[in-house]
This record gives sequence, structure tokens and C-alpha cells, in this order.
Amino acid sequence: MLISKLKTNQPLVHCITNYVTVTDCANGVLAVGASPIMADEISEVADIVNICNALVLNIGTANQRTAASMLAAGRAANQKGIPVLLDPVGVGASAFRRELVEKIIKDIKLTAIRGNASEIRVLAQGQRGPSRGVDVGLDDLITRQNMEQAADFVCKLSRQTGAAVSLSGAIDIVADQQAAFALFNGHEQMTQLTGCGCLLSAITGAFLSVAALPLEGLRGAASLWAVCGELAYEQTKGQGLGAYHMALLNNLSLLDDKTVDGREKYERLV
Amino acid sequence: MLISKLKTNQPLVHCITNYVTVTDCANGVLAVGASPIMADEISEVADIVNICNALVLNIGTANQRTAASMLAAGRAANQKGIPVLLDPVGVGASAFRRELVEKIIKDIKLTAIRGNASEIRVLAQGQRGPSRGVDVGLDDLITRQNMEQAADFVCKLSRQTGAAVSLSGAIDIVADQQAAFALFNGHEQMTQLTGCGCLLSAITGAFLSVAALPLEGLRGAASLWAVCGELAYEQTKGQGLGAYHMALLNNLSLLDDKTVDGREKYERLV
Amino acid sequence: MLISKLKTNQPLVHCITNYVTVTDCANGVLAVGASPIMADEISEVADIVNICNALVLNIGTANQRTAASMLAAGRAANQKGIPVLLDPVGVGASAFRRELVEKIIKDIKLTAIRGNASEIRVLAQGQRGPSRGVDVGLDDLITRQNMEQAADFVCKLSRQTGAAVSLSGAIDIVADQQAAFALFNGHEQMTQLTGCGCLLSAITGAFLSVAALPLEGLRGAASLWAVCGELAYEQTKGQGLGAYHMALLNNLSLLDDKTVDGREKYERLV
Repeated sequence: MLISKLKTNQPLVHCITNYVTVTDCANGVLAVGASPIMADEISEVADIVNICNALVLNIGTANQRTAASMLAAGRAANQKGIPVLLDPVGVGASAFRRELVEKIIKDIKLTAIRGNASEIRVLAQGQRGPSRGVDVGLDDLITRQNMEQAADFVCKLSRQTGAAVSLSGAIDIVADQQAAFALFNGHEQMTQLTGCGCLLSAITGAFLSVAALPLEGLRGAASLWAVCGELAYEQTKGQGLGAYHMALLNNLSLLDDKTVDGREKYERLV
Repeated sequence: MLISKLKTNQPLVHCITNYVTVTDCANGVLAVGASPIMADEISEVADIVNICNALVLNIGTANQRTAASMLAAGRAANQKGIPVLLDPVGVGASAFRRELVEKIIKDIKLTAIRGNASEIRVLAQGQRGPSRGVDVGLDDLITRQNMEQAADFVCKLSRQTGAAVSLSGAIDIVADQQAAFALFNGHEQMTQLTGCGCLLSAITGAFLSVAALPLEGLRGAASLWAVCGELAYEQTKGQGLGAYHMALLNNLSLLDDKTVDGREKYERLV
Repeated sequence: MLISKLKTNQPLVHCITNYVTVTDCANGVLAVGASPIMADEISEVADIVNICNALVLNIGTANQRTAASMLAAGRAANQKGIPVLLDPVGVGASAFRRELVEKIIKDIKLTAIRGNASEIRVLAQGQRGPSRGVDVGLDDLITRQNMEQAADFVCKLSRQTGAAVSLSGAIDIVADQQAAFALFNGHEQMTQLTGCGCLLSAITGAFLSVAALPLEGLRGAASLWAVCGELAYEQTKGQGLGAYHMALLNNLSLLDDKTVDGREKYERLV
């Protein structure tokens, strides 16, 4: 239902996001029927927020200038009452990122946080060891054996921040303060392309603008993207990462609610 | 004739452009046989302009630093006498963008302006309603019914600024102070990929450097790109946006003057 | 051997790189089995270097802010003892670039420098004529006739800087102070896509982190990428640049040491 709602409502999504994956983020937002606008000049972010339906803050290549713009945009979004999603890319990799994320969580009422298992765990529990940069640490792979414990720290972060939380991994976990779901779709090849997480954050912003509840938006976006990942793998198996990249965007632009619902595999954990 | 001239002359095109679509812009400029250089550091833009044959200013993710660089580069380009094209991305979306565009139009002698219908209309007539960000507003779709009125405001902007003007839409309109043409090629799927407008601006910069008249350059670039859009659609119908993106660049690198001339559909309006 | 070592070790590569080709650089680093992190905020670059195994400095769209970050990151990398590679993109195009490269060479102990023939020649011999921007000048094409002279200035730059040097062209030359090799793989179509040089620099950073000697890393990366270029051409001949771009990444993610070794064509010059 959310995919068709996106294509009807065509929400505008303001992204302050990293320059590594920004093209894929913009194309992803367009592929689901929404419209992206990237703007990080502090003197215009409030104007941009004012015409938008969601705000996505991605700290992947944040600097002092854009950090200030993120905070200003977040405040404007809170004032307007549109959803705000934070993607704490590589938050364990530097003090600058950690402090920026802390400041965003403190100053901005976040609707949602989306990251990989290492990023979500750092936020919920603090640092445990050396960071793998922007990629997930090997200790943090989510399996059927540890998914219940993972759900615990995802829910914990939700209680700490008031935001719904989306953890992306071999198994995705989406949770708010009331419920947590494990999603079993997707394909590990997604981790070999840059931007698969960032793109999911960007389209999740679009989903939040049409979902009744944040958790519903997180789950809808995560399932759509994971189904894209597994279909793309089936379609391009053995062809390499260039073909896989193309197939991901193909599927994202073609999939409808019915197909995603039919393929979605999930379990309620909490 | 212009495409083969580009492949012979291999002009250098200096782009100060947004980071969302910059890769596609660079690949587009290369695909038509020219050479792109992106440089936005204010202390080097005059040096870069000095080795280049055209300058393209795209405000899609401009900030205070790069805005100053655009103005400095524009002045250097005017002094050297090379063509300058402005792409006023999302000019209706913020006061910052509006003021930057006004300053560029006031300080720099522009050879051409290229934008979507909403952007061109805002510049010609002022704001009429809420902006759709960087995408065209629904009220601004160009049809056979309203294309004459659209040509009026396109010509008006040309008279106001002295620049030739290229409006991209379901029907493209290119005009200067003497003439206006409607171009009927293209495919609506181009609006579902980020960067189709920015890429056209970048290659139009290349075309301006080899065209006898700006209007001829605008028309040559717009027709080439629109023919790419319709061929790519025929080649990838139903495959999704990833395949369509790839096919656009394929066609741009393969098309010659004869093929484009044979498919071009246009009408003189003024 | 180096490709399989990369897939085992999964080194982290910190890139301070231009925004034109950054997505391709990140995907290239991932395709060879390493993990990229792009970070240019001066207050975090030392933290990032501390978790990384190589640093790549690419000045393609450097500005005063990121120039300072490059110098700070380079010093941190020297202190930690990880390899540092410089890609002097378009160094002949502006005083700003020339001065930045001079400062980097003076302040940072470089493990390697990689560029096109014009860039390497400017560094070794000073400017000889007008720059072609970021692309190689027509006078600087490497042929079997002039490759010995080219090896001379490549070795000269190696002696001047202490870095191993990788020159990319129709014939690649890799050299240190003891030896120089000509590599004959590759395809000229690589020059028609933006980022083929930048991507090679990024993956060379990864190779340096697993190679016993810098020259071995330069040769391994250059041969792999050149073989990708010729295979991609065979696979997509006549299809255009979109298909070629996709095929490059496909091959980069699929090739193993044995295939590359079997196709590598080289000659020792010094």
C-alpha cells in the first residue's frame, strides 16, 4: 500500500547527505515515485524544509559546515512537523561523527534512525572495539542465533531516543518502543556496493512521509529494498557488480506493493 | 554538424556544478567528444577558465563558497569571451537560490540559460505558487495547447537577460530574442532519473563552444539528448530505470548528426 | 596473489577524493575486496587514518578546506606508517593545484604517485605547454617509440620524491628508483569515461596495503584495471559507454589473480 501511496503523493524529500552515494540516493527516491532535493547551504535549508515532506540527515561525509546545516534543517523540520531520519554513517569511526550524532539526537526530535549493526550498537551501547569505518564489523553480523539480542539493543536505542530504529544487515531488524520485527529478505551482495544503506535511508524518508506509523514506514522501505536485492541477485548472478547495481535500480522502479508483500519474510521478535 | 565538430574540436568545458549529478555530467561531456573539468575553488577558477572553451554554472547544491566561485569564474569567462551557461536548478525553492541567480544574471553576461519550465517561468515572471523543489511543478507541463504561451515567457527571459534560453519539458522550447522553436523529441521517463537536466546543461556548454549562434547550440544539444531519451526508451522498455540510465549514455556516445537530424521533430513558434 | 590477499585482508582505504568520481572509486575499492571510507573533515581525518590501512589523496576537486585536510591526513598516515598515494589530477591546470601538490610532496612522505602522462611529466619536468585540464595532452600519448623516454621522467620523479610512480596511458609505466616496467594491457575507451584514473588510484591504495613493495602494488593494480578495460571492451564492443561502464565494474569484481596474470603483457624498461 505504501508504494502506491508514494506514487500518488509524490512527496518531496530533503536530503543532506554524503557525496559518495548521493546520485544513487536521488535515483532511489525518484524510483519509488518521490522527488529528492539535496541542499546543504545553511542559509537555505529552512526554505527547503518548508516545501518538503521529509528530511534525511546522512553524516557520511559531514563537515563542520554541513553539520551546522543538518542541525538547522532538523530544527526547521521539527517546527514544521515533518519526519526526520538520521543515518549515522560510520559513527564509531571518529570523535567528530560521535559528537555530531550526539548533538543531533539531543537537539532534534528524530522520527527514525537507520544504520548497520555496528552503527546502531555504538549508539545503543557505546563503542566496543575498533571500528570497520562505514562498514559493519565482523562481530556485528546478525544471525538467527543473535537476532533476539540484537532486537534488545535496537529497542533500547528506540527508548533512548524516541525514534523508531531500522538496523540493516543479513537480517534486518526494525523496531520502536512497542514492537520489533526481523526481516529475512535481501542478499549479501548488497554489502559489496557502496550506497545500499544510504539509498535505503533516503527512500525510508519518503516512506515515513506516507506511513501512518514510523515503524510501518521503516518496514515497508526495508522490505522493498531487500526484495530488490534478492531479485537483482537472481537476475544477474555471476555477472558482476556493475550488472547488479543496474538491476537494483531496475527493480526499485518496477516493484509494486503486491510483489513485495508476496515475497516479504518476517518474524515478530518483541 | 555540431556533433562531428565537437569530436574534432574536443572543447574543454569548465563546470561548477552540483555533486548530485556531477558524474553523469562529466560522462555526458566526454560522450559527446568534449572534455570536462570540474573545479570550484575560488583561487583557481580563473586559471581553469583560461584553458577552457565554455563555462557551465549549475546551482543545484550551491553554497556560499561555491556561489562566490561561480561569480568569479563567470567574470573570468566574460573577460576571455567564452560562452557561459546558467542552469538555475530549483531557483524557486529558496531565497538563497533566487538571490544567487539574480546576482549571476546581473554580474555576468550569460550566453544561455537552461532549466525546466518552473525554473524558467520563475525567472521570467516571478514565483506563482509553491515550488516542487528541483522538479517541474504540475502546473508547468508544456503541451501543444500552451506551448505558444510558454514560448512567450521563454522569449521574455531572453530579452530580459540577453541570453538564449532552453526550456526542457515534455516539449522543449529553445529561443533567443529573434526566434523560438518547439522540439517534440524525448521521453517522459527522463524525468524519473536525476541529472537529465544537469547533463543537458553540461553538454549544451560544449555545443555552445562550437555553434555559430547560441540558439543553434541549444537546439543541437536539446535534440541530441531528447533523441537519446526516446531511443533509450525503445531499447529498454519495461526493464526499469537502471537499464534506462545505461542506455541513455550508450546512445549519447553513439549518435551522430545524421541520425539526430533524421529523427528531430520541431516547429518554429516565433 | 595480491587480489586474493585483498579479499582475505579486506583493508580499509581512506580516500580524500574529488566528488566527480567518488562513487566509482568507492565501488572499485569494494569490488577488489577492500573497504573504502571517504572523510575530508579536518577534525576527523586523523581518527579515520588510525583505523585505515592506506590513504589516497586525489586533488580533482580540492579546495582550501580539503587541501588542509589532505595535509593533516597525510601527516597522520606517515606517523602511523600506512602507505600514502597521491593522484595529482590536473596539476598543470592551475597554480592552486601546482602549489598544493608541491606542498604535499614536501610535507608528506609519499609511497606512490599515480597520474596520466601530462600530470607525471609536469611534476618531473615542469610545465611545457597549455594544459588539457584533467585529461592527457595530445603531445603526451605514450607509444612504443617514446616509452623509454617516458620511463626516464617517471624514474626521475621517483628519485625526486622517493615515491613509486604509476603513469597511466595507452601504455602504462610503473617505476621506482630501481626498475621500470611498461604494461601493454588496457583499451583507449577507458579515456572516454570519467574516473578511470581516479578509480585506479583508489584501488592502488588498497593494493599498496597488501604488497611487499610499492612497485609490486602499482603493477598489480594497473594490470588488473587494464585487463578489466580490455575485457569490458570485448564484451560490449559497439554498445556504447553506458554498457562499457557497467562491464568495467563487472570485471573488476570477478577477476582473480590467475586470469590477470595470464593476460598481463609487460616489458622491463629499466
